[in-house]
Amino acid sequence: MREVVVFSGSAHQPLAHRICDELGVTLSETVISRFSNDCLQAQLLANCRQRDVYIVQPLVPPTQDSLMELLLMIDAAKGASAGMITAVIPHFAYARSDKKDASRISLGGRLVADLIATAGADRVLTMNLHAPQVHGFFSVPVDHLTALGVLADHFRQQDLAGCVVVSPDLGNAKDATQFSRLLGLPVAAGSKRRLGDDRVVIDSIVGDVGGRRAIVLDDEIATGGSIVELLDRLAERGVTEAAVACTHGLFAGRAVDRLRAHPMVTEVVTTDTVPAPRGWPELRVRSIAGLFAEAIKRIHAGESVSSLFDGVDPTHAPPRQSSLFDRVGS
Amino acid sequence: MREVVVFSGSAHQPLAHRICDELGVTLSETVISRFSNDCLQAQLLANCRQRDVYIVQPLVPPTQDSLMELLLMIDAAKGASAGMITAVIPHFAYARSDKKDASRISLGGRLVADLIATAGADRVLTMNLHAPQVHGFFSVPVDHLTALGVLADHFRQQDLAGCVVVSPDLGNAKDATQFSRLLGLPVAAGSKRRLGDDRVVIDSIVGDVGGRRAIVLDDEIATGGSIVELLDRLAERGVTEAAVACTHGLFAGRAVDRLRAHPMVTEVVTTDTVPAPRGWPELRVRSIAGLFAEAIKRIHAGESVSSLFDGVDPTHAPPRQSSLFDRVGS
Amino acid sequence: MREVVVFSGSAHQPLAHRICDELGVTLSETVISRFSNDCLQAQLLANCRQRDVYIVQPLVPPTQDSLMELLLMIDAAKGASAGMITAVIPHFAYARSDKKDASRISLGGRLVADLIATAGADRVLTMNLHAPQVHGFFSVPVDHLTALGVLADHFRQQDLAGCVVVSPDLGNAKDATQFSRLLGLPVAAGSKRRLGDDRVVIDSIVGDVGGRRAIVLDDEIATGGSIVELLDRLAERGVTEAAVACTHGLFAGRAVDRLRAHPMVTEVVTTDTVPAPRGWPELRVRSIAGLFAEAIKRIHAGESVSSLFDGVDPTHAPPRQSSLFDRVGS
Amino acid sequence: MREVVVFSGSAHQPLAHRICDELGVTLSETVISRFSNDCLQAQLLANCRQRDVYIVQPLVPPTQDSLMELLLMIDAAKGASAGMITAVIPHFAYARSDKKDASRISLGGRLVADLIATAGADRVLTMNLHAPQVHGFFSVPVDHLTALGVLADHFRQQDLAGCVVVSPDLGNAKDATQFSRLLGLPVAAGSKRRLGDDRVVIDSIVGDVGGRRAIVLDDEIATGGSIVELLDRLAERGVTEAAVACTHGLFAGRAVDRLRAHPMVTEVVTTDTVPAPRGWPELRVRSIAGLFAEAIKRIHAGESVSSLFDGVDPTHAPPRQSSLFDRVGS
Amino acid sequence: MREVVVFSGSAHQPLAHRICDELGVTLSETVISRFSNDCLQAQLLANCRQRDVYIVQPLVPPTQDSLMELLLMIDAAKGASAGMITAVIPHFAYARSDKKDASRISLGGRLVADLIATAGADRVLTMNLHAPQVHGFFSVPVDHLTALGVLADHFRQQDLAGCVVVSPDLGNAKDATQFSRLLGLPVAAGSKRRLGDDRVVIDSIVGDVGGRRAIVLDDEIATGGSIVELLDRLAERGVTEAAVACTHGLFAGRAVDRLRAHPMVTEVVTTDTVPAPRGWPELRVRSIAGLFAEAIKRIHAGESVSSLFDGVDPTHAPPRQSSLFDRVGS
Amino acid sequence: MREVVVFSGSAHQPLAHRICDELGVTLSETVISRFSNDCLQAQLLANCRQRDVYIVQPLVPPTQDSLMELLLMIDAAKGASAGMITAVIPHFAYARSDKKDASRISLGGRLVADLIATAGADRVLTMNLHAPQVHGFFSVPVDHLTALGVLADHFRQQDLAGCVVVSPDLGNAKDATQFSRLLGLPVAAGSKRRLGDDRVVIDSIVGDVGGRRAIVLDDEIATGGSIVELLDRLAERGVTEAAVACTHGLFAGRAVDRLRAHPMVTEVVTTDTVPAPRGWPELRVRSIAGLFAEAIKRIHAGESVSSLFDGVDPTHAPPRQSSLFDRVGS
Repeated sequence: MREVVVFSGSAHQPLAHRICDELGVTLSETVISRFSNDCLQAQLLANCRQRDVYIVQPLVPPTQDSLMELLLMIDAAKGASAGMITAVIPHFAYARSDKKDASRISLGGRLVADLIATAGADRVLTMNLHAPQVHGFFSVPVDHLTALGVLADHFRQQDLAGCVVVSPDLGNAKDATQFSRLLGLPVAAGSKRRLGDDRVVIDSIVGDVGGRRAIVLDDEIATGGSIVELLDRLAERGVTEAAVACTHGLFAGRAVDRLRAHPMVTEVVTTDTVPAPRGWPELRVRSIAGLFAEAIKRIHAGESVSSLFDGVDPTHAPPRQSSLFDRVGS
Repeated sequence: MREVVVFSGSAHQPLAHRICDELGVTLSETVISRFSNDCLQAQLLANCRQRDVYIVQPLVPPTQDSLMELLLMIDAAKGASAGMITAVIPHFAYARSDKKDASRISLGGRLVADLIATAGADRVLTMNLHAPQVHGFFSVPVDHLTALGVLADHFRQQDLAGCVVVSPDLGNAKDATQFSRLLGLPVAAGSKRRLGDDRVVIDSIVGDVGGRRAIVLDDEIATGGSIVELLDRLAERGVTEAAVACTHGLFAGRAVDRLRAHPMVTEVVTTDTVPAPRGWPELRVRSIAGLFAEAIKRIHAGESVSSLFDGVDPTHAPPRQSSLFDRVGS
Repeated sequence: MREVVVFSGSAHQPLAHRICDELGVTLSETVISRFSNDCLQAQLLANCRQRDVYIVQPLVPPTQDSLMELLLMIDAAKGASAGMITAVIPHFAYARSDKKDASRISLGGRLVADLIATAGADRVLTMNLHAPQVHGFFSVPVDHLTALGVLADHFRQQDLAGCVVVSPDLGNAKDATQFSRLLGLPVAAGSKRRLGDDRVVIDSIVGDVGGRRAIVLDDEIATGGSIVELLDRLAERGVTEAAVACTHGLFAGRAVDRLRAHPMVTEVVTTDTVPAPRGWPELRVRSIAGLFAEAIKRIHAGESVSSLFDGVDPTHAPPRQSSLFDRVGS
Repeated sequence: MREVVVFSGSAHQPLAHRICDELGVTLSETVISRFSNDCLQAQLLANCRQRDVYIVQPLVPPTQDSLMELLLMIDAAKGASAGMITAVIPHFAYARSDKKDASRISLGGRLVADLIATAGADRVLTMNLHAPQVHGFFSVPVDHLTALGVLADHFRQQDLAGCVVVSPDLGNAKDATQFSRLLGLPVAAGSKRRLGDDRVVIDSIVGDVGGRRAIVLDDEIATGGSIVELLDRLAERGVTEAAVACTHGLFAGRAVDRLRAHPMVTEVVTTDTVPAPRGWPELRVRSIAGLFAEAIKRIHAGESVSSLFDGVDPTHAPPRQSSLFDRVGS
Repeated sequence: MREVVVFSGSAHQPLAHRICDELGVTLSETVISRFSNDCLQAQLLANCRQRDVYIVQPLVPPTQDSLMELLLMIDAAKGASAGMITAVIPHFAYARSDKKDASRISLGGRLVADLIATAGADRVLTMNLHAPQVHGFFSVPVDHLTALGVLADHFRQQDLAGCVVVSPDLGNAKDATQFSRLLGLPVAAGSKRRLGDDRVVIDSIVGDVGGRRAIVLDDEIATGGSIVELLDRLAERGVTEAAVACTHGLFAGRAVDRLRAHPMVTEVVTTDTVPAPRGWPELRVRSIAGLFAEAIKRIHAGESVSSLFDGVDPTHAPPRQSSLFDRVGS
Repeated sequence: MREVVVFSGSAHQPLAHRICDELGVTLSETVISRFSNDCLQAQLLANCRQRDVYIVQPLVPPTQDSLMELLLMIDAAKGASAGMITAVIPHFAYARSDKKDASRISLGGRLVADLIATAGADRVLTMNLHAPQVHGFFSVPVDHLTALGVLADHFRQQDLAGCVVVSPDLGNAKDATQFSRLLGLPVAAGSKRRLGDDRVVIDSIVGDVGGRRAIVLDDEIATGGSIVELLDRLAERGVTEAAVACTHGLFAGRAVDRLRAHPMVTEVVTTDTVPAPRGWPELRVRSIAGLFAEAIKRIHAGESVSSLFDGVDPTHAPPRQSSLFDRVGS
């Protein structure tokens, strides 16, 4: 069997090290150079020939530099005759550019998916894409992991009596519904309303929340604005305490201040798909390194990755015969 | 300027004729042959050389034959040195296969988009894709029209006092919101809940509907099941009358019976993106042929297509400077 | 070595089971779903990751559905990170669309070959293509099997004294010539004449057939029209008995009635590249499942497939040095 | 309208000049350089930008140099921002490599078609491909001309009483049949038999030739071996005189001596798709330059090329509705 | 004729405005948005349909953001059905990554050329690529301009008696040689020597410089290190005064201080392919906007771009018949 | 592990045999056929299925035939389901066509690189490309070997006291510098000057050569013209004896006579990347077969190829951390 080699750019080396620790391999060295004209160059210091190469790089700020490092590392691995190149992108930030919500606008999600294929990636391994349709932007196979199980494990250790899972966006509440099922809790959701062309507010809550403690779940928290708005609505309905959970905890701009100081927030839980913000020791970070390591092991061994999510989320778990449709075949 | 030539397969020739009438050109003849082994063949009876060729074919049942006819016509036009080939697909049915909602499942939306490009289409002209992300499945430019304006025109001729626009799916209510704004009406939406893995029910209504007449808006009606379910919920909240409107009126299976006989339904309005069902004389069909003809005219003349939707839907209309984001560029 | 996994669509499951029996593996389950808008979806119920995946699907009526199922299964296997995907197409029906015999006509054979590559197939395994040039339509490697040996085995068990092999088409008589050599018999052929633009008749027989029993050999029998015409010509030359053999026995339209009732026909022999017609118990069907299974075994083991046909047909057998040309190399 | 620019490599400059004369343009200059390591280089001395560029180069001996010159000229035109590049290949010699008639053999026809597309050609203009299926090897549109009309014009000026058109190969007699129809003559054909693996002989004549003067028609004459063999068979059946006609008159090896000296041969007629052999003043060469010029004019003007062949050959002429198949469309 | 539309990202808007002024068109507006997760988005505010779109963006620091803006604008233009998209990249910074000067290193020049083609550019317009071979990295046509004429015009206005043109790198002195010819001056060059693996020094001067005033010419000045070193060597040979000229004046790091304060430097001349550094009022910037505007005009009108450089540099000027090689063609 | 199979065209069979001897395998047979119309065909006589196929063919005169044989063999191997195809091109002659040194000129180096990828090669193994940038012309991985070590070994066996390594071209002296380091000798170089547009002369020598014996090193010697010119310049500076060494010893035209008879030349050393010229028994040919065999072994085993050149040339040897640039990563 081919050997596994793991490289990392400069976006999130601690995560790469954690994944390697779980895999029982050493992170191979990469040299990223920056020329005086600000161009980047990548050099891989371990043999790639006919090996299964994994390049770990979430698209985090400075996002363009992270992306270019990723593309250059893929190019270097391809030129070095790697057997199979997997771009491991725990946070695919450009997934948010997933539709033409105005004319003559770029479609960054599809473009970046194409760039990654052009550079030479054979497969992408990622987690919790902003919309499930983004999967279809890639021309190479994608293994799409979910952090729901890891986040659910965190809350299972607590007394959840009187809790309710709340999604900020009813239109995107599939994850929250599945999460509530894992925890045996009810679910509610904020209902967004668009004000004018470019402002969105949460103006109602669907589902019963009164007198309950909330567990707010979102896929990505950037500035934290809609979380704070949701908390306001929940407060109006008598919620006094809320835990906040998300997969991709970017916490950009004023997010740390907003959430850390918020009187209702009892804890904030996230994962390490992106580097944790500085100056927030109470932030609870659950690692998804084990999940990525296990996925890499299975990809390498030719075993099912979806079976990793049996009992977690049927969308990611291995298929079972469905009664939804008329069965024609077998 | 290059001449416009329009062809049509057998999926929906009346629509092709209407588009040609609006354009002031004659529909060019196509011969679709079926061999004794059930293979299809397409032959175009008008010169395509360096012409702007438009091939009108919605993906309607028998869907695979409609698709194959489309691909063969594109192939024939390309082989005949067409200058620019536009696949005019008023209903892109495979758009519903837009995500991997289970493992090892085909992603038909992306696959069919790739097949159309492989056959040789240079551009796609379509209407009301099921999800806006499907736009990103195509590697060729897509002009994406909306029927909202046409449907709104229909209702503007009526007394709308006491009406409310209702979307069956809160998670997908952007169109309904925009529609309500065009009509100066309030909006409400059904909230779907997933029962088990494969059954979805509408179990609540978000927004105030009591005592109002409903205008239910959906993008596609196939079996009509969720419309009927929504009407039940509306009835429970005191709604006694509803008009039903949709872009793609497939009305498959028992849909005609269900809707035609429904005691609450005052009228059903749809467009001619797909052929109308038989035996339903009261069905109101508003033609989108004029819209497609105008889009073809503008594509051909190099004029803006998005300006067709100025005042209808900002997503389809020409861009205006947005204050949503920090502006970096001019 | 990678594992072999075999899937089948709904075109011809019995053949897929036979191939699996010969291979000693179980046919893996596939779910083909049909949505209410007639779109198809494929889901593969066995792990494909890094496996050698074989998808068995002849292009038989309903041909467009068979083709779309095949494309969707390939797409699903590719998305599931299959190591190598082989489209096993025992009957590639679109091979008959192999030339532009009129202007502005689609070239279905090349188009379908391109669609299969676009969906993600790495190799095609097929049998007795209508014209050998169709091999060149594929951009992926093709393993092209022949059923001549299987059909010859059938006749070798009989007393062949006084027999002659007859091809309906002198212009395409290579197979018949090779077949006659395998059986140690003389060969004759019908000579076709084109009447007007679109009618072809057999109006003479080249070779001596008088007083002999005929073994008529063709690659595909659809409506059986030209076989019956050939029999008429043979009767005029004193032939009173004929066996009819073909690789692809579609027997569409009136073919079963025509051939079953024909006074000269002693037996009809075909293979199971396509499902047998109903209501014809006397039809002799020789299975090519063993041949496909052996080819799959050899492909999987990296052994020569052409050596399967040593002594059967030099076109399919491994190369030997030829004296036809001036040798420059080696 | 874009300007037409015509270039030629060194394969057949006189033909390129003739085509330009017919077009009323001057052949633009090309410099083909040969480096001391035998590499070639092409430089185009006229502006190509946004122009309709036609590069005239039949694939004649030294065939590999002719091909490489063609590819380099296409590359130069593409790099110089040509608007549309048409490879004008009056004789596409690699068409004879059209099938895998043995295992592990190259398929030169498809390979060269792919190389031409890789170099950057947008379209191919060629004449009388050896097999009609070769059309399907190209991924770019092909305009396929026929010289039948030009050759028929030659004979129409003669007294054709008592003549018969003879094809050397019954399996490939479509052209001869069409040719005989143009001249109002009967048709006959040689029937080939394969001796051993690599020798083919003509051993019978299908059709009545006794006492008639023959007009032998073939697509390409290289060594002339099969023509001489056919003449022997015709002589045995009482034919004493034959005219020989072909599109591509390569006359390689001993062909000139064989045909020039043959006692039965009254005249040999060919076209100028390839340069005429030296030392054969009696050879009748009919120019196809006018046909190519007219095709280029029509391509450039966006007019139908197929209508050039109305009344000549229905395969090349514009389509008419066919009664061959069940018509589904229009 | 199609209209010209010019857009610019945020890399160098003043240059884009200057080019538009020369063209007599208005720079069309672009909105570059930066999301809170640092992803970029481009929106074009003018109709692109069937227009000749030019996107002006040199790859200057922050280089990755400049590149991503360029790719997103190309993507937006392609999605908006632009007729022809030209990426106008006055400084293609990644050209310096043009070779694998160590193993397993990325080849940024080729990668970025491929990314630009993937995004959808049809042509590239650039100036003074670091090495001429970089031209061959692009799969789309490249129009490669030179600033030599503009820089020569600057010096022609001066008294050049006693001057000598000096290139810092003898191995790359083609430009300096051509420049000296334009000015009627002698030429000299520094000879570089590599010290250890990663340090390069100039240790000798080839050509006579004693007692002359130097005009030092380089393609790009980043940190200015090698220019200062060259001045030291020139000083040792008795040169006391030097003008410094370059096409791409990045002047990064300490370059401004080094050159502004250098006692030998009489003036520094550069062009506006990149934004001028701040705080250096004496820097002489000659605009290449006129050259780019003229090239765009000619591209648009289908006129020769190379004739712009007749008399400037034969490499960029239209070809003339060369006596270098044996002429085979024409 | 997959088996290794090695084929060779007719360009240089002795080298292929030597490589096979070093590998301990037998050269598999190839049949190259030439048809009467001068088209070539390749047939491979050994099983390729899933094997590691290496096709040895330098691009030597007749260069176009050598190239076409290579492309046809790759095509045959791909069609025969080879696992991995490596084009082993010890001399890639088209590398000299690496830049557009005039307008509207073909870029043969890039074109041929694209043709090789189109035919189906997965990797290229080559030696001493004329310019290092040519590496970037290939879209497939390239393993680039150097003969410097082999040539240095030759001279290490001699008394090198008083020697100097001389490169004919200062602008391309990297190899000579590295070579001199391997031998512990000083280095000098000729300085070329362009006379008019198309004549280049060596008019000075940089570095101290007086009284020393020269070892002249070049990558390729074709006609030997610049070597003779360099020797004249060296003679003027007091050099009386010179050894001449090169990787690719084509010795075309008058080269053998020029060098064999030259009074200063003590010996000429080259390698067997190309066939040795006839009639020059004193020519010293050092084989690079061992190097190619070792590279093939390592490619096949997935071992580092670059480590073959540790201590020979840092450009080809495995990467070490460089202090040239600011390190951002790892």
